[in-house]
Amino acid sequence: MSHKDEISVAVIKRLPRYYRFFAEMKNKGVVRVSSGELSARLGLTASQIRQDFNRFGNFGHQGYGYNVAQLHQQIGDILGLSNTRSTILIGAGNLGKAVANHIFGENSGFELAGIFDRKESLTGQMIKAVPIRNINGLDEFCREHRPEVAVLCVSKDAAKELTPQLINLGITAFWNFSSYDIGVDYPEVSVENVHIGDSLKVLSYKLSQ
Amino acid sequence: MSHKDEISVAVIKRLPRYYRFFAEMKNKGVVRVSSGELSARLGLTASQIRQDFNRFGNFGHQGYGYNVAQLHQQIGDILGLSNTRSTILIGAGNLGKAVANHIFGENSGFELAGIFDRKESLTGQMIKAVPIRNINGLDEFCREHRPEVAVLCVSKDAAKELTPQLINLGITAFWNFSSYDIGVDYPEVSVENVHIGDSLKVLSYKLSQ
Repeated sequence: MSHKDEISVAVIKRLPRYYRFFAEMKNKGVVRVSSGELSARLGLTASQIRQDFNRFGNFGHQGYGYNVAQLHQQIGDILGLSNTRSTILIGAGNLGKAVANHIFGENSGFELAGIFDRKESLTGQMIKAVPIRNINGLDEFCREHRPEVAVLCVSKDAAKELTPQLINLGITAFWNFSSYDIGVDYPEVSVENVHIGDSLKVLSYKLSQ
Repeated sequence: MSHKDEISVAVIKRLPRYYRFFAEMKNKGVVRVSSGELSARLGLTASQIRQDFNRFGNFGHQGYGYNVAQLHQQIGDILGLSNTRSTILIGAGNLGKAVANHIFGENSGFELAGIFDRKESLTGQMIKAVPIRNINGLDEFCREHRPEVAVLCVSKDAAKELTPQLINLGITAFWNFSSYDIGVDYPEVSVENVHIGDSLKVLSYKLSQ
């Protein structure tokens, strides 16, 4: 769709927040919300919200409010959440476990096909019915199951070492929790970075002002 | 410092990345880097980098390169990383453990004073020499130790319930991993949100284009 071509990163980053909000309203049985209510609840101006929604087509009727179920569905579609992209998780430490337990699931857009760790003591443990495999079996697994997305919950050095291997095995997108900047070395793959420590530094900055 | 007043959120969010880069260079024993090298390694234009640095004062000498140790120090100072703000972590599940183990430490700007969880089976376990306490002891601990920052690695509902209690106990800043929007209900506190699931949705969006 051509209207998506010009969507800015800032708008895209607000979409998951709208999605969470409409999911919550839907669960509460709310049928319609006004842009004023949306504005108060999300801490964004009503005009900002209208502008964001207009980017993606005609979502609501001014003065009448937004249809909660419809927007929940539409924003989910724009985000591609009905997909089940085959995904592998590398690194089953505390962070990897948290990600596997709480983030993946129905309507995440991704399906956790395999979990890998180099620690042999973890092999065979289950997370959400998916067994942890030894990293030595990565090549064989990928050739057989052809996952397209990799989640990296490993150290920077491990991420740097694994990335070319994973790209060779057909991985085209990374959800990267390491501090290795994949996109600089491999501009051809899709990367979404979660630099948790950076966020703490931003908080430190805010508090130092 | 007045020059900080106009610093945009986008620039602030790039500072931790610069900091990581200079830390890495410093560890490798690199003394100077050119803006061209910085640009190639960070995937930002050289002019963008110069603009960012100019916001905070005179960091380098054009044509001569940036002094690695000096910038590492200066950016760390701007980020307030030499502070040791007394911090408590609520929620010692996998995510809380990952945060406590890997993020806090020297030069993080924060000092982990206490860890709390409602699960009694966790009480007494140690994370980085800090014992996990039962959440029932939160009030007493805060009155005695006066922490100023809280890290929330709990569910949305728990975060919503705990926030007013924590603010009453003197907490003025939150590092929030829950999907509860603290800033909407309590605009007076500093909040830095890490919505891990939102990041996965952004990846889903990128892959759907």
